[in-house]
Amino acid sequence: MPTISTKGQQMPASPIRKLVPFAEAAKKRGTQVIHLNIGQPDIATPEVALDAIRHLDRTVIEYSHSAGYESYRKGLASYYAKHGIHITHEQIIVTNGGSEALMFGMMACFEPGDEVIIPEPYYANYNSFALSAGVKVVPVRSTIHDGFALPPISAFEALITPRTKGILICNPGNPTGYLYSQAELERLREIVLKHDLYLFADEVYREFCYDGATHISAMTLAGLEQNVVLVDSVSKRYSMCGARVGAFITRNADLYASVLRFAQARLSPPTFGQIASEAALNTPDSYFTGVIGEYVQRRDILVDGLNTIPGVTCPKPKGAFYCVAELPIDDADRFCQWLLESFSHDGHTVMMAPCSGFYADPATGRKQVRLAYVLEQPLLKKAVDCLRAALAAYPGTDKAAMAKAEAVG
Amino acid sequence: MPTISTKGQQMPASPIRKLVPFAEAAKKRGTQVIHLNIGQPDIATPEVALDAIRHLDRTVIEYSHSAGYESYRKGLASYYAKHGIHITHEQIIVTNGGSEALMFGMMACFEPGDEVIIPEPYYANYNSFALSAGVKVVPVRSTIHDGFALPPISAFEALITPRTKGILICNPGNPTGYLYSQAELERLREIVLKHDLYLFADEVYREFCYDGATHISAMTLAGLEQNVVLVDSVSKRYSMCGARVGAFITRNADLYASVLRFAQARLSPPTFGQIASEAALNTPDSYFTGVIGEYVQRRDILVDGLNTIPGVTCPKPKGAFYCVAELPIDDADRFCQWLLESFSHDGHTVMMAPCSGFYADPATGRKQVRLAYVLEQPLLKKAVDCLRAALAAYPGTDKAAMAKAEAVG
Repeated sequence: MPTISTKGQQMPASPIRKLVPFAEAAKKRGTQVIHLNIGQPDIATPEVALDAIRHLDRTVIEYSHSAGYESYRKGLASYYAKHGIHITHEQIIVTNGGSEALMFGMMACFEPGDEVIIPEPYYANYNSFALSAGVKVVPVRSTIHDGFALPPISAFEALITPRTKGILICNPGNPTGYLYSQAELERLREIVLKHDLYLFADEVYREFCYDGATHISAMTLAGLEQNVVLVDSVSKRYSMCGARVGAFITRNADLYASVLRFAQARLSPPTFGQIASEAALNTPDSYFTGVIGEYVQRRDILVDGLNTIPGVTCPKPKGAFYCVAELPIDDADRFCQWLLESFSHDGHTVMMAPCSGFYADPATGRKQVRLAYVLEQPLLKKAVDCLRAALAAYPGTDKAAMAKAEAVG
Repeated sequence: MPTISTKGQQMPASPIRKLVPFAEAAKKRGTQVIHLNIGQPDIATPEVALDAIRHLDRTVIEYSHSAGYESYRKGLASYYAKHGIHITHEQIIVTNGGSEALMFGMMACFEPGDEVIIPEPYYANYNSFALSAGVKVVPVRSTIHDGFALPPISAFEALITPRTKGILICNPGNPTGYLYSQAELERLREIVLKHDLYLFADEVYREFCYDGATHISAMTLAGLEQNVVLVDSVSKRYSMCGARVGAFITRNADLYASVLRFAQARLSPPTFGQIASEAALNTPDSYFTGVIGEYVQRRDILVDGLNTIPGVTCPKPKGAFYCVAELPIDDADRFCQWLLESFSHDGHTVMMAPCSGFYADPATGRKQVRLAYVLEQPLLKKAVDCLRAALAAYPGTDKAAMAKAEAVG
């Protein structure tokens, strides 16, 4: 029997999806599972996108250009211009979701063994793409105590080696929801220039900024034309995760040419998804006003609710639709599985993503979970009730810590 | 300015698409370009698939399971059973086209530096996937003189090293159209077992077999349960290249589990494409009867036509919708570019894929081109006329060889 490769063995299971079999078993027992584990919003996809699909007038579903339909790329360039990002359609390659953009970028920019610094906790699948490309993820720790702000530049400097070739940020952040300030981005700019690194900026949550905060794109940082790779996706913007349409964007012409050759090898991004995505560019602003208002209310219900549970810490994020909470427990992987296997409250339980998978060293996130506030408000209230009851019942809860927190609180 | 990785520099441009800028320039000059360079059929996608898209009744375009919708995978398992391939839906992972299935398979099965033997000429993009995975392609030469039949097993044996981990075949073949016999597959079975290799079988042209020939899947070879990886796609079967829906199939449970983790990292295959593909499973048999009849006529027009041109050799393939022709010219890359830049006949010219990119050593295919007979019959007749005139006019034509062939012929 032939062997599985080292990469094939090391490839981690998704922390977001690995508990799915336990959730399925819970459902079979009749428990309603509140899915806060995955960033799959219940928000309706814009009608304008669905209509384009329903009015499909083609008779042959052909390949598109390997970089994506030119008309869609031109539309995207206008969309970015509205967001203060000035690029041409010839600096955009449409990809199979943001995932493929990350994969192509890592392959084209980094040698096997090169190092990429990523503020942690970070989107778990970065580990998978890095492993595929043979790239070493070097985490720089951000902490829950300051809401997962950018670590000081000295912390980055301390990690730079001759193999350091890039920094990867997610802004607003998954899993933290943290939104970087102009000052933080300027600090990144300096270190990127100083060491001539690539700066990968995953900005798929651009639209989701709250409390009057505005998103600042890495593409607007002066002097980084050759360094910045923008990773984007329609998945969250238009609640169209299944379209699998993302984008790889760079002003670096050599890098663009290289990634286009990777794109040619896989022929083209999905035609149906591009049709929907191009139409979605005409989504009215009112859609986003409504969606953002809804997310703010959801965030407040979930985060404020979690913070009323003694011993629970959950910073209130200004972006995306995730939060990271630290719980008074022994082990979040165990707790999350226990919630699905052994617990229900009023017929409900909660599925969350243990944070172990969002850190380079799983032990670091042992007491943290990621929650996605992508469901309607009554379910989020129910989720908070469930978690309060679960922490009271779970054998691995640190009751002393809870009591102490309650006394202080 | 940060550097491009070695892979990023080495990634080849697609031989199928690299001449596109010349074709665009020709069109701007008013020349009609007959596209025989790419396997993009003009055949209509089955109505049943398009109808499913037009009748989309979802309000949120969600991710699917990372392995693809269970209902689709169950439908696929039934489809395969009808073709004598007995697998369960839990042995199928739906992918972003056959491309992703190849990519995942190479990553999960092979270490960087491992060797995979591929009969050449082979589908050019195998080079790209191998390069991405760090795998070394070891070509075993098939020749135009016997229609690109499987090379003798001794030729494979001579190439086996301690790093040899797999054999990759495309059946029916792209670019050759060659269909392997049971005896040829049994020979492959023996060497695969003897050296405990993976056997990757790209069978995306399964339906397209002519002259009463039947397709035999590598999945039906006894004793290879742990060895065979089946790569599939709906692109050609339903003339739905833009759906980007393929499949990775194996009975090897460890390998399946590994590839599923790669699949989780990129979340899910496209939802719209899966909806269309699931519906396409109900395509009536009459569709294929009609399409196959049409391809046979197209093949005969193109191949018979080419063989009437002195000095041109083109075996008549029994499968897929490509043929490889050897031309009396100095260099096919130069000739194909010249056709687009400097030639027209009755306002037409022909775009073909130079075979240099279909060989591990580009020099080997220097006089060969791949032609896809994916266009309607009058255009194929016109293409033959064009090529006859072009060979008479092209400065790099070997006129002596043509005259000699004519004298002999």
